[in-house]
Amino acid sequence: MTNPTAAMLVIGDEILSGRTRDANMHYLAGELTKQGITLAEVRVVPDVPEKIVGALRALSAEYGSVFTSGGIGPTHDDITADCVAEAFGVHIDIRDDARALLQAHYDNSGQDFNAARQRMARIPDGATLIDNPVSVAPGFVVENVYVMAGVPSVFQAMVASVLPTLTGGAPLLSQTLRIERGEGEIAGPLAALAEEFSDLSIGSYPYQRNGVYGANVVVRGTDGARIDAAMARLSGLFS
Amino acid sequence: MTNPTAAMLVIGDEILSGRTRDANMHYLAGELTKQGITLAEVRVVPDVPEKIVGALRALSAEYGSVFTSGGIGPTHDDITADCVAEAFGVHIDIRDDARALLQAHYDNSGQDFNAARQRMARIPDGATLIDNPVSVAPGFVVENVYVMAGVPSVFQAMVASVLPTLTGGAPLLSQTLRIERGEGEIAGPLAALAEEFSDLSIGSYPYQRNGVYGANVVVRGTDGARIDAAMARLSGLFS
Repeated sequence: MTNPTAAMLVIGDEILSGRTRDANMHYLAGELTKQGITLAEVRVVPDVPEKIVGALRALSAEYGSVFTSGGIGPTHDDITADCVAEAFGVHIDIRDDARALLQAHYDNSGQDFNAARQRMARIPDGATLIDNPVSVAPGFVVENVYVMAGVPSVFQAMVASVLPTLTGGAPLLSQTLRIERGEGEIAGPLAALAEEFSDLSIGSYPYQRNGVYGANVVVRGTDGARIDAAMARLSGLFS
Repeated sequence: MTNPTAAMLVIGDEILSGRTRDANMHYLAGELTKQGITLAEVRVVPDVPEKIVGALRALSAEYGSVFTSGGIGPTHDDITADCVAEAFGVHIDIRDDARALLQAHYDNSGQDFNAARQRMARIPDGATLIDNPVSVAPGFVVENVYVMAGVPSVFQAMVASVLPTLTGGAPLLSQTLRIERGEGEIAGPLAALAEEFSDLSIGSYPYQRNGVYGANVVVRGTDGARIDAAMARLSGLFS
């Protein structure tokens, strides 16, 4: 029994130009892992319609769910909602319930609910809204694609709205042994151990700190007892 | 005249599980932008051969160059070199010059140059080596794919080795205006400006700090005088 799979699509020129360092990928990866959902691929694409549409179609067909971040604000470079509609061949327009949410918000704050802000109520036909407790403008779900904001505080709030609705698998557990030896010294016995415990995933992540080479060996799986057994063997081998 | 394009392929379960936060994407994005090369797409895939091979083929066919990070160490989960060989249909084996580099390094440090470490001398036929001044084990170039380490200090050193060999375009310049108004207020005039200056890329990146909404508007392009002109108009509109 394998866990459900997911992919993420990060949309935004600012990540690819190096202006902004993406924070949402690392956050989503951790949340999905806790939920027992395997994040199997991430793509980052620019604000270019054919790139967004192509990636949406490819990821949506291949994985159980797709989470997008970015491009759902009021400005001219926010084109994600239209791209999602195009990817799935559905109509898009301002939707009454989304408009009502935004209208109430701007009325309350005494700000003009102008044409640009009304763009944030453009929702593809058949979508379900995702609650945005931070700044009101909703995300939405079309088929298996969860469309969320790029601003990290809003992205995180939307992930929190969405996660309880997802069917996870067995949570992925992990234990780490830090070994102060070069990877080349431990690689042989480690490979043999990985073969013996082929139901687990054993990864080696090298580091170099103050001139000392070492590796964090991470054992991952869904069966805690098997991980304990592998960790005991690991400690025996390398201590 | 458009700038050369590049893609990045990040290889590693540890990024997708949320254990490690990738640092190489942001670094490479900044370095390529300075060099006048457009980073047009990033993918992150797990340590799964068919995923790595598929992404290598797709990105290598679509973009001018591809930079990979991760999976070239001595342990069983380091499979990048073999995947590159498979992607391009070339043979791979331990290569004499790479082995000699590593042999000298381990002889000097009095460590055993064992079978696991010799794996780091496995280089696809026809590749050019990339110098690794940090930990010796080389990266390599096959066709338009630059294969580099995942450890950030080594990745950065390899990028520094490689960048001078690349033909860049005109460096991408940018200027930013910080506007303390909600994006919805500036979106209309901003869209008109973006249409007028269609030779530039104008992006709006919202933020919320201490309850104040604002946006950083970034104007990017290769012609400094045009950017100056757009910035002057921007300041006029929003100050």
